[in-house]
Amino acid sequence: MTANPSDIPALPRGFQAAGIAAGIKKTGAPDLALITSERDCVAAALFTTNKVQAAPVLRDKSLLAGPNPALRAVIINAGCANACTGARGLADAEETARLVAEALTHTRSIAAAGAISAAQVFTMSTGVIGVPLPMDKLRAGIPIAVRQLSANGLADAARAIMTTDTRPKMAGVQRGAWRIAGIAKGAGMIHPNMATLLCCVLTDARIEPALLQESLQRAAAVSFNRIVVDGDTSTNDTLLALANGASGMDIETPGQRAAFEQALTEVCVNLAQEIVRDGEGVTKFITLHITGARDTQMADAVGRSIARSPLVKTAFYGEDANWGRVIAAAGYSGAEVDPNKMTLWFGPVKVFEAGVPADYNEADATAAIKLSEIEVRLDLGLGEAEATLWTCDLSHEYVTINGNYRT
Amino acid sequence: MTANPSDIPALPRGFQAAGIAAGIKKTGAPDLALITSERDCVAAALFTTNKVQAAPVLRDKSLLAGPNPALRAVIINAGCANACTGARGLADAEETARLVAEALTHTRSIAAAGAISAAQVFTMSTGVIGVPLPMDKLRAGIPIAVRQLSANGLADAARAIMTTDTRPKMAGVQRGAWRIAGIAKGAGMIHPNMATLLCCVLTDARIEPALLQESLQRAAAVSFNRIVVDGDTSTNDTLLALANGASGMDIETPGQRAAFEQALTEVCVNLAQEIVRDGEGVTKFITLHITGARDTQMADAVGRSIARSPLVKTAFYGEDANWGRVIAAAGYSGAEVDPNKMTLWFGPVKVFEAGVPADYNEADATAAIKLSEIEVRLDLGLGEAEATLWTCDLSHEYVTINGNYRT
Repeated sequence: MTANPSDIPALPRGFQAAGIAAGIKKTGAPDLALITSERDCVAAALFTTNKVQAAPVLRDKSLLAGPNPALRAVIINAGCANACTGARGLADAEETARLVAEALTHTRSIAAAGAISAAQVFTMSTGVIGVPLPMDKLRAGIPIAVRQLSANGLADAARAIMTTDTRPKMAGVQRGAWRIAGIAKGAGMIHPNMATLLCCVLTDARIEPALLQESLQRAAAVSFNRIVVDGDTSTNDTLLALANGASGMDIETPGQRAAFEQALTEVCVNLAQEIVRDGEGVTKFITLHITGARDTQMADAVGRSIARSPLVKTAFYGEDANWGRVIAAAGYSGAEVDPNKMTLWFGPVKVFEAGVPADYNEADATAAIKLSEIEVRLDLGLGEAEATLWTCDLSHEYVTINGNYRT
Repeated sequence: MTANPSDIPALPRGFQAAGIAAGIKKTGAPDLALITSERDCVAAALFTTNKVQAAPVLRDKSLLAGPNPALRAVIINAGCANACTGARGLADAEETARLVAEALTHTRSIAAAGAISAAQVFTMSTGVIGVPLPMDKLRAGIPIAVRQLSANGLADAARAIMTTDTRPKMAGVQRGAWRIAGIAKGAGMIHPNMATLLCCVLTDARIEPALLQESLQRAAAVSFNRIVVDGDTSTNDTLLALANGASGMDIETPGQRAAFEQALTEVCVNLAQEIVRDGEGVTKFITLHITGARDTQMADAVGRSIARSPLVKTAFYGEDANWGRVIAAAGYSGAEVDPNKMTLWFGPVKVFEAGVPADYNEADATAAIKLSEIEVRLDLGLGEAEATLWTCDLSHEYVTINGNYRT
C-alpha cells in the first residue's frame, strides 16, 4: 500500500531519508531505512523497560549517555531484532553504525559538515528475536541507501521499517518556520512502557537536549505510553527525537516551549493511534476513558487491565456488548475499586451503574459496539483523576499472524 | 460426553449428589447441581480476589464468617453468574438457599438429622455476568434435583456445572477408611488468585475447621493458584471443601494430617490440571517450570508473565519454537531478571543460554513443541527458588468461543 502523497509530511530542513530492500526480509519487501542530518543533532530518547534489551538498544543508550552526543544519522532495519544475540549482536550494531558513518563521510553533500563517526549513528532493529543480523546484506545495502537519500524520502523510510504493519505510519506538523515529522512502526508486542517498537521524530527547531528530553517524555506519556495492542512489551522499543536546528528558530521562551511540546505531542499521538489502528489483526479501535479515579495510577491500572483482557478484546471482536467482562477486568486490576460506585458507557449507552445493569436497550449497546471506532468510558466514582488509553480487539487474524510469525 | 464409569470417583460416605437440566441454559443442557450431606459439615473455602464479587460469593463469605457454620448442602447453577446483580442478586441467592433447605427438610431420608436452614446451604453460580437468576426455573428445578439425589450422582453434578467446558471434571482418592472426591469447572476467565471458577471437594474424614482451611489453602497454592488459561480472574471463583466426618476417622495426628493434605492436594492438582487441559480452545497443555529464582515471588511473577503472554501462547498454538517471546515475557515481568544468566529449554532441547541462542537443531525444538503436552523450563540463574505453572496455548477457537459467548 502506498501512502497518499498528500498525507506524506515534509521532512524538516536539513534532513534526508531513504528506504530500500536490502534482502533482510525473506519477502523482498523494503527493510532498511536511513535518516541523516546535514548538521549535528541534539537527541532525546526513551527505551523499552523490558529487562531483556536488544543490542541496538544497549548501544544507543550508551551513545546517549556519553558526552555531547551529536547524532548525524539513524539506520533502522526490519526483519531481524538483533535481540538475544550477545556480544556478536553488539559488534554487529557497531559495525552497522561504522558502515553508515563511512559511507556518509564519502558522500560529499552530506559530509560538508565534516567527517562522521560511528558514535554519531543511532541504530534500531525490529523483527525476529535471537537471530544475528545478516551483515552481508547490510554491507551491500547501506551504500545503496546512502545513494537514495532524499528530502522526499520519509515515506520510503516509513515503509522500510514495517514488520507486520500493513501501512507506513507518518505524521508531521508545521509551526511557522520550524516543523516536526515522525515515522513509526508497531503492530504486535505493543504494551509500551515506554515506547512502542520504533519511532523516530525529527525537527529543525533549535532546542537544548534537556528540554527536548523533557518534552519527549511528556509527549510519550500521553501517546505511546497510552496504547495497548496485546500487552507484550518488546525488547526493542525505541523512541528517538532529533533536533538539528536547521530552521534557525529557537525553542526557549515559555511560549515557544509550549508550542513545541504541543506540536511534538500531536505528532506522537497521531503515530501512537496509527499503531493501534494498524495493530495485528485489529478490526476495532477502542478509546478507553477511565474517570473518577482516586489518582492517575489507579486510572491507569484499571485501564491497562481492561485493555489487556483477552475476554474483553474477544467480546469487542465478536461485537458482543458483554460489559460484565469490562467490570470484571476492572475488579481484578489490583486497584481498590468498588463495583457499586462504577458507571460504564459503551458509546452513548450507559450499560452499568451502581452495581447493577443500567436500564438500556441491548440493540443500542450492540450498535455502539458495531462501530469500527468504539468509545468506552468507565467512571470509578472515587475521585477526580482520569486516564485515556487506546486499544483494540483480539481477532482470529491476530492468532493467525502470531502463530506463524517466523515461517 | 459421558465420563467413563470407571473414572467416576465414589462419593464419600454420607454425601449425595444430583445434576439436572432446569432450563437456565438456552441449550437445554444440565445446569443445576445439588450436593447434600446427611450430617452437618465442617467447611473451608477460598474465594476470588476480584473486587467485583458475585452475589453467591458475597453470601457464602458471610455464611462462613458466622458462628459455627454447619453446612448441609451446596446448590450450583451454570448459565448465569448472578454477578453485577445488586440487591436483587443477593435476594435471589438467599431464596435459592431457602428453597433447597425447605425441599430437603421435607425429604425424610435427608432430614433425619433435623430441619435444615437456608444458612446451611451454600450457593454457587457460573455463566453470564449482569443477568438476574431465572428464579422460576430454580423454583421448578430444585425439587426435581432433590428427588434425583443419589450416592452415585457425582458425575451428574459435575456435568451440570459445566459452561464452555467440554467434559466434566472429577477426581477422588481413597485412604483407608476415608475418602475425598471433588468436582470442578473451568474453561475461561482462568487466572485464579485464588481458585478457578467453581470447585467442590468432599470428604467423610472428621477434621477441625481450622485445619481443613489450612490444608485447603496449601493445596490450592500448588494447584488452582498455579494455573493460567487467559489471565482473566473471574468474579465467581469459589473453592469449597466439606468434611462430614461420616467415616468416623479423625484427622488429628501429624501423620493423619500429612496424609489428608497429601490426598487433598492430589485431588486439587488433578482437577486444576483438568481445567487447563479443557480450557477454552486449548490444543496444548504447557507445564512451565521456573527455576533459579531469587525467591518464589520472582519465580511466580516470571511464570505468570510468560503464561499470560498472547505472543507466547499463539507461538505454541502455531507450533513455532519462537523462544525469543518467552525470554521477552520474562524480561517485562517486573522481576529483576538478567538475560545473560537465563537458560531455557523446550522439552529436552536447550534453546537459549547466557544471553544468546544455544547450539541446537531447529527440528528438535519444533518436535518438542509439536507435542500436545509441552514442558518448558526457564532457569533464571539467580538463586534456588522455583515455581511450576500449568498453562495452555491461545487458539482461533478461543477467539471464536469468546467472541460469541452470550449468543
